[in-house]
Amino acid sequence: MAYVKEISIIGRVEACLLNPDRATGLEKLPTDSLTLTFDGITGDCHSGPTMLSDARTLKQYPRGVTLRNRRQVSLVSVEEMAEIAEKLDIPALPPEWIGANLLVSGIPDLTLLPPSTRMMFSSGATLIIDLENEPCRYPADVIERHHPGHGLAFPKMAQHKRGLVAWVEREGKITSGDTIRLFLPPQRLWNH
Amino acid sequence: MAYVKEISIIGRVEACLLNPDRATGLEKLPTDSLTLTFDGITGDCHSGPTMLSDARTLKQYPRGVTLRNRRQVSLVSVEEMAEIAEKLDIPALPPEWIGANLLVSGIPDLTLLPPSTRMMFSSGATLIIDLENEPCRYPADVIERHHPGHGLAFPKMAQHKRGLVAWVEREGKITSGDTIRLFLPPQRLWNH
Repeated sequence: MAYVKEISIIGRVEACLLNPDRATGLEKLPTDSLTLTFDGITGDCHSGPTMLSDARTLKQYPRGVTLRNRRQVSLVSVEEMAEIAEKLDIPALPPEWIGANLLVSGIPDLTLLPPSTRMMFSSGATLIIDLENEPCRYPADVIERHHPGHGLAFPKMAQHKRGLVAWVEREGKITSGDTIRLFLPPQRLWNH
Repeated sequence: MAYVKEISIIGRVEACLLNPDRATGLEKLPTDSLTLTFDGITGDCHSGPTMLSDARTLKQYPRGVTLRNRRQVSLVSVEEMAEIAEKLDIPALPPEWIGANLLVSGIPDLTLLPPSTRMMFSSGATLIIDLENEPCRYPADVIERHHPGHGLAFPKMAQHKRGLVAWVEREGKITSGDTIRLFLPPQRLWNH
């Protein structure tokens, strides 16, 4: 009866990150664990029941429209960060530079996981994926500061490798070292 | 930069339906319009910020776990209801018998629309699709009451035609006759 099915791939949480104040910049700080409520990550600048539309949704909404917050958590993978770093010719791309809350490993092509995939962590806390995250200019500037001459290609080089945004389906804690179970909706194309 | 794109197909709202009290049964009553807030449809028995896990999610959760409500609105289409009615050999399948909130037309294979598709109504109110709705036993019983001998095949005959469940991204009103704009995420398969 259920239309999401668990797959055999199990991911792992490599790092948890927080940014209490967006005004100080995009960069986040490592932390031992994250507490998820239906508002998002407690203490993170992106938490809240709602968010305002911005440049990402200009084809749908003017700026400043109140929307349900579906960008509560930003996830990236060790594997994809390494690929982007290689393309940018820098030694490493730390997740804190690009505003991620979770660095995970063991999930191939993390960014391409289908919308509405469920990610269940060891505590039972569960995220639902909304969409791929769009590589934008802000991380480019951070990388450029650390590695002058290497950051500005980020939006192009990070295409389809910049991770996902997700929202909380079930409250709970996420801790470094957690396993991540994956429940996928049916995969098929809508041909119209 | 946006990862959802509008398509040229425009749907139409054919009917709005409400059920204030689930205890009276699955059947809903027609109404002129629906008011959407972030909690769902005002006055409907499925509204609320959260919901409890049930038989649909047994592979993920035990029953009774508090989850974000992502089944706020149930949508079905005129075209798919006609197909199910034909398979059940009954003259028509009214949306109120199967607990739908919205009957729409003009969107082919409504049930197969990809997860995270945005549906924007005339007022600007917007739903985000979570998943296909699973045909279960309750509508079968209602149909069986109206057409003895024809209802029990519903779960089988309604596979992939029983519509969608969605949640509110932007608040607003939905009225019969509204147009529905569709914004789809990238369509692709995750091959792992």
